[in-house]
Amino acid sequence: MAEFTHLVVVKFKDEVVVEDIMKGLEKLVSQLDNVKSFVWGKDIESMEMLRQGFTHAIMMTFGSKDDFTAFQAHPDHVEFSATFSAAIDKIVLLDFPVVAVKTATA
Amino acid sequence: MAEFTHLVVVKFKDEVVVEDIMKGLEKLVSQLDNVKSFVWGKDIESMEMLRQGFTHAIMMTFGSKDDFTAFQAHPDHVEFSATFSAAIDKIVLLDFPVVAVKTATA
Repeated sequence: MAEFTHLVVVKFKDEVVVEDIMKGLEKLVSQLDNVKSFVWGKDIESMEMLRQGFTHAIMMTFGSKDDFTAFQAHPDHVEFSATFSAAIDKIVLLDFPVVAVKTATA
Repeated sequence: MAEFTHLVVVKFKDEVVVEDIMKGLEKLVSQLDNVKSFVWGKDIESMEMLRQGFTHAIMMTFGSKDDFTAFQAHPDHVEFSATFSAAIDKIVLLDFPVVAVKTATA
């Protein structure tokens, strides 16, 4: 069964303290066992034309689509989503089964 | 030293055979040792409002920013970039040092 990734690309509002949001997300993820991996980053390299104002990427990977569905419905996630939504200026969100061509552990 | 991720979110042109593009990318990555991991996926879940027309995510991770820089400059990558650019309708690109909060191997 394919792993399932929840990818979030965002631009936060100017007044938002990104560290606080990330700490909240970190806490959420640490409480929920069905999140298999969670990484994020702040763009430091792309040309403005290519990043189109977006600044951060957040990726959560689950063992299966069912695990992702359970995560989405979890009350802690629903609660955090409200906080997160209030902090963002724009967002692109993709949810997909992972096609792993090459992995670090291979 | 932090790993470095090259994240590409795209909408391909309607007439493009995505499989061909992905095969090209797979070939490129398999030839270049500095690509540590390469995964991709096609969105199957997000609401149109949230994915904003984007359909595919491609993530390549490198051992360091220097490895990424070497990849960018490699003639095979430069050549493939021309093919890739011709195939896309729109793109968001982010390049960032990876903050790994939780990983599958932890």
